[in-house]
Amino acid sequence: MEGHTACQGFSGLFREGAGGYAFAMNALEAGRGERPRFERLSQSAGARRGRLTTSHGEVATPAFMPVATAASVKSLTQKQVDELGAEILLSNTYHLMLRPGADRVAALGGLHRFMSWTKPVLTDSGGFQVASLSALRRVEDEGVTFRSHLDGSLHSLTPERAVEIQEKLGSDVAMVLDECLLYPSERGEVRAAAARSLDWAARSKKVRSRPDQALFGIVQGGSFTDLRRENARALVDLGFDGYGVGGLAVGEPKEMMREMTAVSTAELPEDRARYLMGVGTPVDILESVALGIDMFDCVLPTRNARNGTLFTGLGKIAIKNARYASDESPLDPGCRCYTCSTFSRAYLRHLFVAREMTAATLNTIHNLHFYLDLMRRVRLSIEEDRFSAFLAASRERLDDSAA
Amino acid sequence: MEGHTACQGFSGLFREGAGGYAFAMNALEAGRGERPRFERLSQSAGARRGRLTTSHGEVATPAFMPVATAASVKSLTQKQVDELGAEILLSNTYHLMLRPGADRVAALGGLHRFMSWTKPVLTDSGGFQVASLSALRRVEDEGVTFRSHLDGSLHSLTPERAVEIQEKLGSDVAMVLDECLLYPSERGEVRAAAARSLDWAARSKKVRSRPDQALFGIVQGGSFTDLRRENARALVDLGFDGYGVGGLAVGEPKEMMREMTAVSTAELPEDRARYLMGVGTPVDILESVALGIDMFDCVLPTRNARNGTLFTGLGKIAIKNARYASDESPLDPGCRCYTCSTFSRAYLRHLFVAREMTAATLNTIHNLHFYLDLMRRVRLSIEEDRFSAFLAASRERLDDSAA
Repeated sequence: MEGHTACQGFSGLFREGAGGYAFAMNALEAGRGERPRFERLSQSAGARRGRLTTSHGEVATPAFMPVATAASVKSLTQKQVDELGAEILLSNTYHLMLRPGADRVAALGGLHRFMSWTKPVLTDSGGFQVASLSALRRVEDEGVTFRSHLDGSLHSLTPERAVEIQEKLGSDVAMVLDECLLYPSERGEVRAAAARSLDWAARSKKVRSRPDQALFGIVQGGSFTDLRRENARALVDLGFDGYGVGGLAVGEPKEMMREMTAVSTAELPEDRARYLMGVGTPVDILESVALGIDMFDCVLPTRNARNGTLFTGLGKIAIKNARYASDESPLDPGCRCYTCSTFSRAYLRHLFVAREMTAATLNTIHNLHFYLDLMRRVRLSIEEDRFSAFLAASRERLDDSAA
Repeated sequence: MEGHTACQGFSGLFREGAGGYAFAMNALEAGRGERPRFERLSQSAGARRGRLTTSHGEVATPAFMPVATAASVKSLTQKQVDELGAEILLSNTYHLMLRPGADRVAALGGLHRFMSWTKPVLTDSGGFQVASLSALRRVEDEGVTFRSHLDGSLHSLTPERAVEIQEKLGSDVAMVLDECLLYPSERGEVRAAAARSLDWAARSKKVRSRPDQALFGIVQGGSFTDLRRENARALVDLGFDGYGVGGLAVGEPKEMMREMTAVSTAELPEDRARYLMGVGTPVDILESVALGIDMFDCVLPTRNARNGTLFTGLGKIAIKNARYASDESPLDPGCRCYTCSTFSRAYLRHLFVAREMTAATLNTIHNLHFYLDLMRRVRLSIEEDRFSAFLAASRERLDDSAA
């Protein structure tokens, strides 16, 4: 192995040039291309098999987007994420505007180049994080002012500024700023937040300028069928490249989440991608695919991995459990990921109990593989027009609790 | 990329068999082979180019052994360690006897199988960790009793027990239990500890039984030339498969460390491997190679990586420094590791400042590559009989501080 280096087999962004090292930017400069477009390829029951084409590559849908909050999928290298077959990542405007800052990312060539990820990226607008993480938040018609959860510094985010930041980041898909409410909220509050979010969406569309970036509107309206329907219709009248379904998975019952998802997608055009934001468990995802959702993101696989909760075809496993201390079987006998094909439950338990950082890495590889493999099987079942049977079988098999 | 899984391209220890998954143990069962043997292949000035052949593969020397204290190189997967070209790892008897326990590792097929590492492993005896980590240590002629740093439980380690544990772990090279003193220590204490260590070495040799494991004696004698010389001679009279040089890098001046290393190696047979325990900085390693040392281990590259201190051909870098916030050059322009060929200093600083776990991984990949690549160049310079020039040039170029 002498002379063997770790970088072989992965096309790094630095290459040796005539005068030393220089960025090999071909793959990234291709980012200056056309606006991402969505095609629906086939359908099975309510589930859609589609393709999002961006200048950074294609995304087969239904797709799960691993969360790279601060431009990194926690505990993994980009090479590991790539090897897992992820086709698109989600990153956060809120986190990146605070650290390292949108102007810095722009000066460093944009988010793809900054994090050396050549495939598509979707950026959330920051609305949800402002609501859930920041202190002293004040929402007005103009926008939102808040204090950073990092250092208490004062910041403001308007719909226009959220677009500007995301254009600087250079994500393939940007989300409009919206006002997120938790469940339960009063009808009057929800109506006002939905109206404000609609106004912000219109302002966002007006100022967007980047020709290679899609801008998605976000359906709000909480748990009120009429408000949500009305909001979706008005948003579609404005016209966006795709649509997020927002304000769900914020504490409401599962049945309500599904009903509100159905009410939202019923109003959305067939030829645009639909993204259910922040969802969810494997069953949540399958049920939402049945309702016509194309894209998902959730911290569940990555956060659970770090907490030692692992998804398997036979239900969830808490790897710290003493019963695994001498268990030399793989974590999930049906799984072909690096973790399951290489290590025993006993070793994974040891790493977790010993607080070795590699525990987080191996667990994250497995949980993300579980999610990405589930999506692959979902897509195949739609292509073969047997999604309903796949859903019914999966409902029985999968454990639907979050942790 | 659909359907692509993370485990392709790496021969996992689990393979799909007729009735499901089963361990593919060919590579590991080969461990039941002959005792590791060392050959000196060439020499340049005092530096030796050699080869340690074990039933888990060959190790080109001079070699650096990355530290896998608790059966894991912190923040890396075994695949990443393998891709870096590491040919042998060091693991710790002290840590493994406490957690998960030697009997458990043995029941799980031994250390190689437990951690899915098919190349050689050297295990330290635990003497140094008992001295530096445990509480309420009591050293007697019989052995040492101590309380675990994990839970305060009472344990004892005798020379016989240290051999037994390491035979259960099944490492390729086992170390005798020794009594380690810090610097400075009184001559009388050092003399007594050296005599006791010699007695323990004799008892270790008497009880060792595993035919596929080398047992190394450890030269003690602190900073006293005559004691160290006398101890080395007596140890060689006992006769071991290889020799550790211990009790150094424990606070003594660099000049003294080098003198004591020289005094020790002068007494050791040419046809046995010499291992300088716990050393050191890149310059320490080069200077010690010049004195005839073949093997090294040190936490410096991995611990410094987690602290954000990175070795480069131009000196050390503290990556958190604000000067790197917009620096889009690679960490070390001369380095070909995955980290340097893929990411900018600005991104590495961002990950470190944001406390992303991936910072530790990328930094560890780089620092270990730096050490392993240094050893590769050391070996080449010996093969080409230009080690003295290599050493002189490196002395000027490399920064010799520990952090």
